[in-house]
Amino acid sequence: MKSKRAGGKPGAVVLLSGGLDSATTLYDAVRKGYACTCLSFDYGQRHRREMLAAQRIAKAARCRHYTVRIQFPWKGSSLLDRSMRLPRDPSARRRGKRSIPDTYVSGRNIIFLSFAVSCAEAIGAEAVFIGANAVDYSGYPDCRPAFYAAYRQAVRRGTRCGVEKRPVRILTPLIGMTKAEIVKLGCRLNVPFELTWSCYAGGSQPCNSCDSCFYRRKGFEEAGVADPLERGRKARL
Amino acid sequence: MKSKRAGGKPGAVVLLSGGLDSATTLYDAVRKGYACTCLSFDYGQRHRREMLAAQRIAKAARCRHYTVRIQFPWKGSSLLDRSMRLPRDPSARRRGKRSIPDTYVSGRNIIFLSFAVSCAEAIGAEAVFIGANAVDYSGYPDCRPAFYAAYRQAVRRGTRCGVEKRPVRILTPLIGMTKAEIVKLGCRLNVPFELTWSCYAGGSQPCNSCDSCFYRRKGFEEAGVADPLERGRKARL
Repeated sequence: MKSKRAGGKPGAVVLLSGGLDSATTLYDAVRKGYACTCLSFDYGQRHRREMLAAQRIAKAARCRHYTVRIQFPWKGSSLLDRSMRLPRDPSARRRGKRSIPDTYVSGRNIIFLSFAVSCAEAIGAEAVFIGANAVDYSGYPDCRPAFYAAYRQAVRRGTRCGVEKRPVRILTPLIGMTKAEIVKLGCRLNVPFELTWSCYAGGSQPCNSCDSCFYRRKGFEEAGVADPLERGRKARL
Repeated sequence: MKSKRAGGKPGAVVLLSGGLDSATTLYDAVRKGYACTCLSFDYGQRHRREMLAAQRIAKAARCRHYTVRIQFPWKGSSLLDRSMRLPRDPSARRRGKRSIPDTYVSGRNIIFLSFAVSCAEAIGAEAVFIGANAVDYSGYPDCRPAFYAAYRQAVRRGTRCGVEKRPVRILTPLIGMTKAEIVKLGCRLNVPFELTWSCYAGGSQPCNSCDSCFYRRKGFEEAGVADPLERGRKARL
């Protein structure tokens, strides 16, 4: 059953990692008139700080927020296995190399999306938002449009809402944007970038050398906007 | 990277709930020559006894076994929410009524499958087995062939193995069988049915009135085989 929330707003579940893409996606969903429920995941990632960021962003946007604890006991990714080194060669990306880095956690987005769809069905929300991006990204296959097209079919076939011809809609508003365009959109939406966290390394300050820091810096630089985390770092130097 | 396990066997991940379908699927995968890794889920289900059953069955089959802890904080199913009553009208099913009962946990199989694919990619297994059945079943949409066809596409598009043209294969050997045929197959494979657990109710003995007990009994009766759990129950009376 689809239901309207208090105030007549349609419901949406927003996957919120705590980075700038998911924060911008949340503010975009709110602007579009959805009553949003945010989902974050504690999955043993080394950059646990992103969970705190997600909590703060959801609070700033005045949205309900769940942190779901899950496990990947088999690891197999440098985001999960601290004995592996994080790849630190973003220069290879500048030269156009596009292999899948070992920060890839197999099945992660399909698992996150499926929890979001489960939540949406349970609370009567009509859409799921995910801030996947297939332009300035690390090459993960579960960030690409072809995956989302296939996943939407699985939701149509494998959920109650789907077989009743009212499938939960899977929305990826940032998928075709550059990181600079995302930063500019975030500025227009007043996203609290100072609360976001992108770095994979798990330190108290961004490492400025992992893939995620590389794309964040690229986005702010190309948008001509100062990154509030960077300003804070310089002030502390 | 696909890898062969010790002894040259291909690897498979088997979703093992502890019921007779998943146990039969495991023994079928072993018979087909796979080195199997079993996955079970602790997801707050009221019938937690199935997890103990899964552990015993994996041990009997001499397979590696992971129990993955996950959460559905939004509940929305009588399997998760003890304030809801389990539906107890299997007679409606005998009359051919086929609505989705409220034991349905939205997104459950897509989540379980996605963890299995994640595990398979991480350990280099080439297949995932799931004992889904769309004949003598509760009408859950994520047990139907159309869902699995769509899900396979999502795996092709959204995983490293998939985009490298070696997708993890999703195998559903029981999907078109009656429960009686599954029992007969299990007998041929020497599945230890006495270790399996089907009842949803969470008691120390099968309730004999939930959907899952209904289909189990139907299967054994139509196969002309005595259910060892039923024998045990009668001996205790």
